[in-house]
Amino acid sequence: MADEKELIGITVKKNEDFSEWYNQVVLKAKLADFTAVKGFMAILPNAYEIWEKIQEYFNAKIKALGHRNAYFPAVIPESFLMKEKKHVEGFNPEVFWITHGGEDKLEERLALRPTSETIIMDSYSKVVKSWRDLPILYNVWCSVFRHETKMTKLFLRTREFLWQGGHTVHKNKDEADKEVLTILDIYEKMCEELLAIPTLKGYKSEKEKFAGALFTTTLEALMPDGRALQMGTSHNLGQNFATAFGIKFMDKDESEKFAWTTSWGFSTRLIGALVMAHGDDKGLVMPPKVAPIQIVIIPILFEDTKAKVLKASQTIEQKLSKKFRVKHDFREEYTAGWKFNEWEVNGVPLRIEIGPKDLEKDQVVLVRRDSGKKEIIKMKELENIVPKILEKIQADMLARAQKFLKDNIKNAGSYAEFRKIIEEKRGFIKTEWCGSQDCEDKIQEDTTATIRAIPFEHPKNVGECIKCGNKAKFVVYWAKSY
Amino acid sequence: MADEKELIGITVKKNEDFSEWYNQVVLKAKLADFTAVKGFMAILPNAYEIWEKIQEYFNAKIKALGHRNAYFPAVIPESFLMKEKKHVEGFNPEVFWITHGGEDKLEERLALRPTSETIIMDSYSKVVKSWRDLPILYNVWCSVFRHETKMTKLFLRTREFLWQGGHTVHKNKDEADKEVLTILDIYEKMCEELLAIPTLKGYKSEKEKFAGALFTTTLEALMPDGRALQMGTSHNLGQNFATAFGIKFMDKDESEKFAWTTSWGFSTRLIGALVMAHGDDKGLVMPPKVAPIQIVIIPILFEDTKAKVLKASQTIEQKLSKKFRVKHDFREEYTAGWKFNEWEVNGVPLRIEIGPKDLEKDQVVLVRRDSGKKEIIKMKELENIVPKILEKIQADMLARAQKFLKDNIKNAGSYAEFRKIIEEKRGFIKTEWCGSQDCEDKIQEDTTATIRAIPFEHPKNVGECIKCGNKAKFVVYWAKSY
Repeated sequence: MADEKELIGITVKKNEDFSEWYNQVVLKAKLADFTAVKGFMAILPNAYEIWEKIQEYFNAKIKALGHRNAYFPAVIPESFLMKEKKHVEGFNPEVFWITHGGEDKLEERLALRPTSETIIMDSYSKVVKSWRDLPILYNVWCSVFRHETKMTKLFLRTREFLWQGGHTVHKNKDEADKEVLTILDIYEKMCEELLAIPTLKGYKSEKEKFAGALFTTTLEALMPDGRALQMGTSHNLGQNFATAFGIKFMDKDESEKFAWTTSWGFSTRLIGALVMAHGDDKGLVMPPKVAPIQIVIIPILFEDTKAKVLKASQTIEQKLSKKFRVKHDFREEYTAGWKFNEWEVNGVPLRIEIGPKDLEKDQVVLVRRDSGKKEIIKMKELENIVPKILEKIQADMLARAQKFLKDNIKNAGSYAEFRKIIEEKRGFIKTEWCGSQDCEDKIQEDTTATIRAIPFEHPKNVGECIKCGNKAKFVVYWAKSY
Repeated sequence: MADEKELIGITVKKNEDFSEWYNQVVLKAKLADFTAVKGFMAILPNAYEIWEKIQEYFNAKIKALGHRNAYFPAVIPESFLMKEKKHVEGFNPEVFWITHGGEDKLEERLALRPTSETIIMDSYSKVVKSWRDLPILYNVWCSVFRHETKMTKLFLRTREFLWQGGHTVHKNKDEADKEVLTILDIYEKMCEELLAIPTLKGYKSEKEKFAGALFTTTLEALMPDGRALQMGTSHNLGQNFATAFGIKFMDKDESEKFAWTTSWGFSTRLIGALVMAHGDDKGLVMPPKVAPIQIVIIPILFEDTKAKVLKASQTIEQKLSKKFRVKHDFREEYTAGWKFNEWEVNGVPLRIEIGPKDLEKDQVVLVRRDSGKKEIIKMKELENIVPKILEKIQADMLARAQKFLKDNIKNAGSYAEFRKIIEEKRGFIKTEWCGSQDCEDKIQEDTTATIRAIPFEHPKNVGECIKCGNKAKFVVYWAKSY
């Protein structure tokens, strides 16, 4: 058993070497793997099926509001990236360039999309003519490419990752603003309801906003190492891209106007967040709603009672798989102990064990992955109890994450205290800020912390900037981040 | 009305200028559009939603057999493409090459995947160790890239398109063979059941098989212009890629063996097939099962009766949308005539009209898109009749396509007759063939026709090769193709 655990189990503790723990969980739970191409990962089925659950949830929400999925080219002409000045400054350094097709040199270099605003806006400019054509509410599921030069971290920093990018066109600022916030709310609910990860939300500062946006809104989660992780962003692009790409329409009042556009996205980085937020020393812990497998049934097999036990475990599988995603692990080439370890590493929320002695007593053993709590119940209660336990696991996981977030939002009375907290405990620090990029830059230089979010609710009484002491304009959340 | 039709309707007849008709339908039904990047298309929601239906159908079928979705890098090191000799010859001329990341020249050029075998096989080689690890049954939904030099045709020949690529690993030839044929059967059923397009199936000849495969199986449909369209292919790759990439496993008998691999795929070209196979002079005609919108409800609105009629059409929408994908087109900025044209161009299978006179008589008007047949029914019969009509449309569309296929498989008594049929009528010609590539090449030179499929059922009595007159080995289907 010791050897087995060594082989498939996690060999470091989460609170001792968080980074190594993360890598082991991602690799041993077979979520992702490195590939022969530096910085590019393979997303394995255990993770891709999480992504499919996220897609299902999100597609249902946005389609109900009239959004539709589409697909646009993975390549962008160099001249397009150059059209929006701030956009090109933001993305140019990390672009992969295509220069040849077969033996032929291309007339113009093509960028592998680092983001899709420019190519999509160009398409929109051809079809938008009248107010009747608006709004356009399209979303794209695809991969994007960034030539990252820092060390790769699976799901968190790779040279290609999957995401959704929403790209919408509206008649005026009000409609665009509403779209931006509607989507941010969907993101927030998705993180809470599906992933059991609570977030802080707000605006990005001018310095941190999306390259080319009027303003950016963001959702920020806190990871167990005290660093913030951006879970999704939603941008009002103003009329910047519409002007650069000529998206004009004839309004009802017969005047020609530039449209307002938005874009918004989240990526497979959410899977990294799931691993970090909920995992423990044994491996992954999946919230039931997003778990590809919600229940694993493990029959305890001995030669003389095998047939009887398998019959019972099959019956359980049949009953539960009507409502849940169930795996019946009846492999005979592995021991029960090996299977317990494997499914714990994989984070399956609920394990059901049934052996010959249980069968005699007409009972099964339920083991919760999140708390390790064991419960013996009568067979006939199974269909009644299982849904309740899964709901309880989901709720408990969210509650624990909410407590962690709440406990790690600190106030700082002075800049010295601010630096001490950021260095020693990390987490979010809520402070007052004058609004100048000068103070923002200096704090980042001193501590590497950045403004993660400026809450939407403007406080009534704002005191002095934590850095310069001048009259503050905002209350903001600072943190070190991924 | 004439102007409206001109604007949104199709202005050429399908049987007069098929190619122009196709382009108009694709563009006016807003399935796809050209983009600023030569040869790259935008797949618009009307087509992407067809793709989503195809994905739903196919995912359900393959997941039920244990297949799982995953994602692998979009880029492939040049050295990988070189590892399988025939593979590189097949794909190298049409590869897009990435040479730079930001300002830096890459150490090795990266190919934008024209297909994914090599990069996936390399990943598999790292994880396959024992017979216990097999089979691996992964599928990838992604886009692929081909630097086509011929003229672009939306969905049929573009430089990027969407597809699914299955990549599986097996212990031996039998299991790999079984996988190849199981998938081909799923493809065949999908074409028939979902897309209402019948196909011929069989092996590809050595000349036409996938670059690097042991053998290729194919599904071939016939388009109205008499040209064949390949709907999907499924390849047994033998041990070729396993040998090139080192996919070895320890078998139960304790001997180390190279694995057997397969790959299989279909692409967004299926959407092009749908357009061609079923469309008519008014535009697209969608089979109900794959139609993003199955029913459009159009209330006939006049000022004085608007409220009453809208109330009734809303009630219809509520009732039918429980079971079907329904669009209630109550826009007031367009006339009813405009809407009829628009939804006809879009191919919505069933239109329901309701006006003030219908309301008085407690009736609605149903119009089938495929046959144009109009039917007036009592309101209370609606929920009973609509499902039957949709089933009938689906069945009728398949039956018409089956008759067309059957009517266009010809025999040729001599090579002269063969050439005459191929030139004048096209369609499939079923002939005997000696099996030599020499004859195959000469027929292609003379006629541009190729062997599309060699049926799985070997006939008992085979006569003489249509070209050389020597003893034939096979009965094969020839056609000109897309």
